[in-house]
This record gives sequence, structure tokens and C-alpha cells, in this order.
Amino acid sequence: MSKKLHNFNAGPSVLPKNIFEKTSKSILNLNESGLSILEISHRSNQFKDIFSEARELVLNIAKLDSNEYSSLFLQGGASTQFLMVAYNFLYNNAGYINTGSWSAKAMKEAKLFGNVIELASSKDKNYNYIPKNYNNTSDLDYVHLTTNNTIYGTQFKSIPNFNQSIIADMSSDIFSRDIDYSVFDLFYAGAQKNLGPAGTTLVVIKKEIIKKIQREIPSILNYKIHIDKDSSFNTPPVFSIYACLLNLREIKTKGLESIESDNKTKADILYDEIDNNSCFVGFVENEDRSNMNVTFNLTDNNNSEIFEKICKESGVIGINGHRSVGGYRASLYNALQIGSVEVLVTCMKEVESLINKK
Amino acid sequence: MSKKLHNFNAGPSVLPKNIFEKTSKSILNLNESGLSILEISHRSNQFKDIFSEARELVLNIAKLDSNEYSSLFLQGGASTQFLMVAYNFLYNNAGYINTGSWSAKAMKEAKLFGNVIELASSKDKNYNYIPKNYNNTSDLDYVHLTTNNTIYGTQFKSIPNFNQSIIADMSSDIFSRDIDYSVFDLFYAGAQKNLGPAGTTLVVIKKEIIKKIQREIPSILNYKIHIDKDSSFNTPPVFSIYACLLNLREIKTKGLESIESDNKTKADILYDEIDNNSCFVGFVENEDRSNMNVTFNLTDNNNSEIFEKICKESGVIGINGHRSVGGYRASLYNALQIGSVEVLVTCMKEVESLINKK
Repeated sequence: MSKKLHNFNAGPSVLPKNIFEKTSKSILNLNESGLSILEISHRSNQFKDIFSEARELVLNIAKLDSNEYSSLFLQGGASTQFLMVAYNFLYNNAGYINTGSWSAKAMKEAKLFGNVIELASSKDKNYNYIPKNYNNTSDLDYVHLTTNNTIYGTQFKSIPNFNQSIIADMSSDIFSRDIDYSVFDLFYAGAQKNLGPAGTTLVVIKKEIIKKIQREIPSILNYKIHIDKDSSFNTPPVFSIYACLLNLREIKTKGLESIESDNKTKADILYDEIDNNSCFVGFVENEDRSNMNVTFNLTDNNNSEIFEKICKESGVIGINGHRSVGGYRASLYNALQIGSVEVLVTCMKEVESLINKK
Repeated sequence: MSKKLHNFNAGPSVLPKNIFEKTSKSILNLNESGLSILEISHRSNQFKDIFSEARELVLNIAKLDSNEYSSLFLQGGASTQFLMVAYNFLYNNAGYINTGSWSAKAMKEAKLFGNVIELASSKDKNYNYIPKNYNNTSDLDYVHLTTNNTIYGTQFKSIPNFNQSIIADMSSDIFSRDIDYSVFDLFYAGAQKNLGPAGTTLVVIKKEIIKKIQREIPSILNYKIHIDKDSSFNTPPVFSIYACLLNLREIKTKGLESIESDNKTKADILYDEIDNNSCFVGFVENEDRSNMNVTFNLTDNNNSEIFEKICKESGVIGINGHRSVGGYRASLYNALQIGSVEVLVTCMKEVESLINKK
């Protein structure tokens, strides 16, 4: 297949082309070592160098001090973090902001360990906005929020203030913008959107919160053990981490400010088209629209066949919406090129033009 | 570096050369799709085909009926299984056979959920044998054993009979030999030895044991959920699973009988040299010697420098023993070529010859 594809998948998703090239090469011969990245020992100096550079880059990019924070590359996705966060830190009450599916899943796991207080929810409007007012928040072990909801396409434009520890699921917008990461005591992200391929989960944790752990926690779920063992309590997912390292280098070089600016440009182009094209309508309230996942519907569902045909012919893939929203979702992660957004916009214009001719 | 390397690492470890070639290619262009294996959606038909073929091949190779058993590719390594096994199935007493480090870790995690009864242990001789007699085993929720101990180099040559459910950690010898996998109600293996790169964990479970689950279990640790969700409760580690699929195809083509025979040949060559070379001595009692991990020491530690120098010059890597055994460990997983064993044997002979000349 020679046609260029424009990959709008919600994750796993597109990564920078040179990450594909470098990881592909590393499988045949890692840094001229004569060994494949797939066969090196996780205790080898080769991997130790890769791993420590990746862990340091995370803190460096997030502008966090390595004396205060620890970065971990674990396994099991955000779904495992839903559990670990509560297992380690929920003893009485924890506050959760419910912005949809992922928050709800985090709340479900947390209920096994303590009281889960829903501080706010946008369920009343099928999660098409970010709630701005929160219930009384005294006496909470922590506040948990999802910075970006991949399914509904909502995003906290700023992180609300709380007196408590804030813990954030940043799976779908980590390192997509220049925010103050030090407001979080813990944040985590499945790699498979802005970081790298599926198979590892980044966790950044403020070391001092470890002393809040009061119960006996199984080793593999215990943050203290992962910190003490330098994120190598058991065999880390070597390849996924190496791919993340290559991407983190790119992120560091480009800088979060520049990345945020490009992401905003891409999102603006697409939202502008949605707002100005009579065939489409956005799903999310304007002020809460995600720059990562753009959700929209056709104003007339009878046009779906023609829109999808045009997309297919143009190489646009991965824009089907999640079943809970319907319609379409275009994910504009860091690695998605502006040219791909322009192709999608052209497809949308073509639909409008064809419909108007009828 | 042009010299051929002989990779005896204990895991992650050598994989078949064509797995390196095919996975490398799949990162640039998966099956002429125009997409990288790293960017396809885990909900895409491309990945669904990969995943269902991998899951079916596991059962097919193990000669297990898909109506009775389910195969899962999870994350978190054997260390996560230590926890999940007990969380799901330990309510009163469970019996563990302690053959060293890995068994001990499994026992440690299990103690959080019920009584752990050590049925037998080889600790008295630093785990250099497989215990053959077991304490009274009535009234156990299950019996857990480690079929091959990677660190000490011991291996159950046959699986002992028990009236209870047998659960096995097969991380370092799965699909290395033609045994009756139906004796287990559950077996698991971190991929990074005989299956594929680090990053996924194979679990095969008899479906009917699910009804034994009596407590509320966090979703990500719940076998029932993983079975019900076809091993896609959350984003699976796509790349690691694809690499496993390619390797499972090789295993299926070659057949376990033939693989076992080759592995025995490789191990025999090395153990013969250990037994006949005056400079070396084996660590494990003869009848319990592992065909996967061959542990041995120098009879005179003063010869370590010369042995390691010769190995280095010959491209032999990854033979340092685990600190709890000392000396050397050569791991002879499926993908290690007989030629590599011959190179190691030549190194050992060279040491003997040099020492005798002195």
C-alpha cells in the first residue's frame, strides 16, 4: 500500500516517524552492539543507561526535582493505577471528579479501599463538559481527576486548586502542553498516546507521600517498592521503555511550549471547520474542548456513508467515535502532523460541498 | 561490531533471528498495511487477528481444548501472577513447593490472603535440588510450584501428582518440552524467555476454576474479567504480543517434541563438559538439572579472570551467575543455537588446557 495514511487513532496511536525507524533498527542491532533491543538483559549496562536516561528525562521535561519526585515505568496501564492509587493512599475518604468513563472506572476500583466521594460530575450532559464547582473537600486522602477524557473529548484547561494531594490520570494528554506538573503529588499515563507504544505506564510520584501508606500492600502494587527498586522490582518492558526514551528525547528537544502551540494550532483548525461546516457539529462545550481528542457528529447521520467513503479515499483512518458518544473522534496527539488535520478538513469540506450540491 | 555474539542471558534473552527480522519490519510496515505495529489500534481488525491467532496457538501447542481453557496475555510479569493467584484462589490454605527465590516470592504475596503451607523445600542445600517428598496435602485450595528455577538451575523433570488444583509458574521453561499441560488448572509465564520480548505475561487458566472465586477482586487482578473480556480488559501490549505470535508459529511448526529433543541435546553437551572438565563443577544434583539454565562454578575461583577473558573473546555473553549461586549460568532457551553451546564448551576446554599447562 503506497498511499499515505493519516492515523487519528485514540491510542495506540501515531508516533514520530523517526521513532519507527530507530526502534526498527534497534531490533536488528542496538547501537552497534550486535544485539537486539529485544534480547538484552534488563540488568545490562545497555539497558540501565536507557532506563536511567528515560526516567531522568521525564522529570526534566516536567520540571520536577529528582530529590522530590520519582519517575517509574510500570506495567498494567492506567487501569492498574486506578487500583494502586487507592490501595496505597485511600484509607478514609477520597474525592473523585467524574468526567466520564475513565474517572468512573477509577472510582469503581477505589471503592474497595475506602469511601469515594464524587466531588463533581458531568454525567447530566453525557460528560460533554468539565465540571467547575466541587462539593466540600475537607478531610480527603486525595483528589483524583482525569486531565483529559479520551472518549468524550473534554480537557481540564487548568488544574483546579485543592488543599489536598492531587492525583491525576494524564494518559491522553501528558507532555502535550506546558503545565505546572508540580501541582500533582502523583500523575500517571499509559504510554500508548503521547509517550510510546502500548506496554508501559509512566508514574511520577512525590516521594514524601510514600509515608502516608498505612496498610500492607502486595509488592507489585506498592509504590514504595517500585521507588526503592528504581522501577526494576521485576523485569521492566524493555522495548516499550526504549521507544519512550526516543520519544522523550524528541519532546525535550522540541519543548513543551512549542508542542503545546502546535497542538493548539491543529485543534483550532479542526474545531474551526466543525463550527463552520454545516454538516458537522461538535460534541463538547467550547471552553472544555480537548486539544487531544476532537469529538464531533454529522448534523445528518444519513451523510455518514459519504463522509466515511471520502475519508477512506484520502487515507484518513481511526476516526470512529467511541460507542458512548457516537459519531467521530479525531485524536491529535503530538506526533500527528498538521498536514493530516488538513487532509481531514478537506474531507469535511468535500462532504459539505457535495451535500449542498444535492 | 561484526563478531557473532552468543547470548546466554537468563531473560530477556535470545529469540529466533527471523523474529528480529519480522518484528523490525513490522515497525516500518505491518503486513503491507502502511501502518506500524506500534501505531495500530488494539481494537483494529489487524490486531484482533494477531491476538486471536496467538491465543489459539497457545492452547493448540499445549494440546488444550478452548472450551475448557482460556489463554490470556496480561502484563506485570510472574510477580503479578504471584499476587493474582492468591487473590483469586486462596481462601484457607494453599500448598507451595519452595524451590528457591521465585517460589519464596510467590509465597510472600500469598500470605496476605490465607495460610501458606510449605509442602517441601530445598533450602537446606541452597536449593540445589528438587524436593521429592511433600507434607500432608489435604484441604488445600491449590498447590503452587515453579517448574524451573532460573536462578538455581533446577527443573521438575515430571510434575508431581496432587489431588488438588496445581498452579505452575512456568516462566523459564514453558514450551521448552513436551509435557502434559492439562495437569495444571493454571499456568503462567513471563514472556521474556521462551515466548518473546519482555512486556507480556502468558496465563492459561481452566475456565471452571473461576467459580472458586469468593471475594471481590479489583478488576485488573480478576481472572474472570480477563477471560470475559477476551484478554482485552485494557489495552494489551500490542508489540510484545505480536512478537510472541511470530514465535508461537515457529514453536507450532517445529513441535514441542522436537524442541525438547534439541534442548536436551544442548544441555547434555554442556553438562558433559562440566562433568568432564577438571576446572568446572555443576551446582545442581544431577537428576534435577535444568535443561534451560545450566549453573556451574569454577573449581578454583582464581581462574575466573582467564575464563571470562576467553568467553569475551569468543563472543560469549550473559553467563554470570545470579548472586545467590555465584559462578556461572548459561541459559539455553529454545532460540539458543547448538553452535553457541559448542562455542562455550570450547571456551571451557581452553581454560582447562591453559591451566593444565601451568
